[in-house]
Amino acid sequence: MSSNVRHWWVNQNQTFRQETEGGYLWSPKRNSHGGRNPFYEFMREISPGDLVFSFEGTYIRAIGVARSNAYESPKPPEFGKAGPNWDAIGWRVDVKYYPLNNQIRPADYMSAIRPELPPRYSPLQSNGRGNQGVYLTFVPPRLVDVLFRSIGPEAEQLHTIVRSIEYPAEVDYREETAIGLVEWEEHLINDIRSNLNLSETERETLILARRGQGVFKKNVMQVESQCRITKVDRAEHLRASHIKPWRDCGGSDERLSAANGLLLTPSVDHLFDRGFVSFEDNGDLLISPAAHLSSLEKMGIITAGSVNVGGFNTDQRFFLNYHREEVFLRARVTKRVTHVPQI
Amino acid sequence: MSSNVRHWWVNQNQTFRQETEGGYLWSPKRNSHGGRNPFYEFMREISPGDLVFSFEGTYIRAIGVARSNAYESPKPPEFGKAGPNWDAIGWRVDVKYYPLNNQIRPADYMSAIRPELPPRYSPLQSNGRGNQGVYLTFVPPRLVDVLFRSIGPEAEQLHTIVRSIEYPAEVDYREETAIGLVEWEEHLINDIRSNLNLSETERETLILARRGQGVFKKNVMQVESQCRITKVDRAEHLRASHIKPWRDCGGSDERLSAANGLLLTPSVDHLFDRGFVSFEDNGDLLISPAAHLSSLEKMGIITAGSVNVGGFNTDQRFFLNYHREEVFLRARVTKRVTHVPQI
Repeated sequence: MSSNVRHWWVNQNQTFRQETEGGYLWSPKRNSHGGRNPFYEFMREISPGDLVFSFEGTYIRAIGVARSNAYESPKPPEFGKAGPNWDAIGWRVDVKYYPLNNQIRPADYMSAIRPELPPRYSPLQSNGRGNQGVYLTFVPPRLVDVLFRSIGPEAEQLHTIVRSIEYPAEVDYREETAIGLVEWEEHLINDIRSNLNLSETERETLILARRGQGVFKKNVMQVESQCRITKVDRAEHLRASHIKPWRDCGGSDERLSAANGLLLTPSVDHLFDRGFVSFEDNGDLLISPAAHLSSLEKMGIITAGSVNVGGFNTDQRFFLNYHREEVFLRARVTKRVTHVPQI
Repeated sequence: MSSNVRHWWVNQNQTFRQETEGGYLWSPKRNSHGGRNPFYEFMREISPGDLVFSFEGTYIRAIGVARSNAYESPKPPEFGKAGPNWDAIGWRVDVKYYPLNNQIRPADYMSAIRPELPPRYSPLQSNGRGNQGVYLTFVPPRLVDVLFRSIGPEAEQLHTIVRSIEYPAEVDYREETAIGLVEWEEHLINDIRSNLNLSETERETLILARRGQGVFKKNVMQVESQCRITKVDRAEHLRASHIKPWRDCGGSDERLSAANGLLLTPSVDHLFDRGFVSFEDNGDLLISPAAHLSSLEKMGIITAGSVNVGGFNTDQRFFLNYHREEVFLRARVTKRVTHVPQI
């Protein structure tokens, strides 16, 4: 089994049809009372190529292959009653689903499955029923083996197919990602365009700010002088990248705040915006476990050893905290889970 | 005199006020009969930090400092009668102008100036009048010296100030560039949004194409498999970059054509889109003389020696020809002019 491919379990009961037909996973970012939920945080750990067991109505219905990392995306319109709920911003992962011919009922295999259930965040109760409250969770390798044996040859065949796919041989893998993100930003831009409480100049300023240009860039240049990573200092090659994303900002103040920006060359801007990299307050570079290291290296990011890009001021730290919490592709609970001993 | 700073002459008679107040130079791309004009092609050679003598009404009125390379931009609205002429796409360079206290009349200094006038593309006639038909032209170093001596200490002071400015110490230099370009694209997007001859899906597809995403990216992925420069092959890090820019495309077909795209990591996408790099049909990498080499190197572009990224197919070559002719920052006439012997 490829050590790079990780395995996940998703309880899709209420949204099974929408997610499998639409080719994605979607979760909110927070519980209804605003707290963190480990089963939503796991979304941030998925990498393209990971496998997902799709569970619905006591059956494993399909195996999915992730085609993207998690990205911020509004609640899918097909979930709700009245079109997109643009305010409910969650995590989305693009997934290609392969329906199984042999859709097994784990409850029928509990003697083999039970010993492999992890003590925390288990996908199933010991009686084989789904675990209330679990959306996405991690499947330990030995449990994967049991499930694959139970499903039979088609699971192994699928696994073999997935392992043999080399980027970018398969178009399936290589479809666009993050379309939801782009569409969402276009929606916000339309909102600004039609906001008659803003002057024409204010509207243009806010729209330019999304492109990392205009007044916002000028503001950031009062604080930052070069790309923290590549050290490029020529304005024509730098974008003013929002630390708290433009799409998440509460209003004009945050969208234009000098402290809410870094000057970054375009590839670094992309990696930062999509949460593949972030920074500690002291300037230590954080690289997401979801990142594809050799791709980052080809883009000029040093991924080995520790890199410090210089500290940040108090106001910047406020926004950096948001970036680490809400954008950076890191699940806080990962270590606890992946280090659970395989009993 | 810094060998990196080059000197230019602009005859601004009709647009002097607009250009100096607006802080830019602007020229069409072509003559009214559609041909090339060397005085427009020179726009593509200006680099940030270059000096420009601003000539109007027989006087040198100001010295400007270029703050950007040339970028595609619509005709400034203040030139015309009835708002922006979005169809007239020309070259724009951002310039900071310093008005001179001693505005000299070159005709008064012709005994010193005349011997230094270049035989081709001369900014002045031998009688000291401006040359009809010249917009922007090159000023040979010895002519620069004569003009500086004629203007007196303030020219040298300005030169000293400019030489001492290190990127990015001066905010003046570091304001945003290419705002016109962004505004123009936003204008085109608005046009698409309000085009009722297109379906909602077609409109979204065309707008996503500008971001290098969606159907266009999928199309390009049928032809290209990785970034030609960085060799990154993960879809999540690649943009489908238009060879003939989205903003210049005649219609939907060109905007979505598989042959009109390359998969590029974001920094390379930026350099290609802004004309700092291009490719020969055989895949040889072209680096613009207007590019800042050490910045390119920091972004992972090998600038020394020759780099070949592999050849292009017939359809791609069609679009690459457009890129080299219309986007790449290279003036055809440069060599002829700069190699004129200094008599």
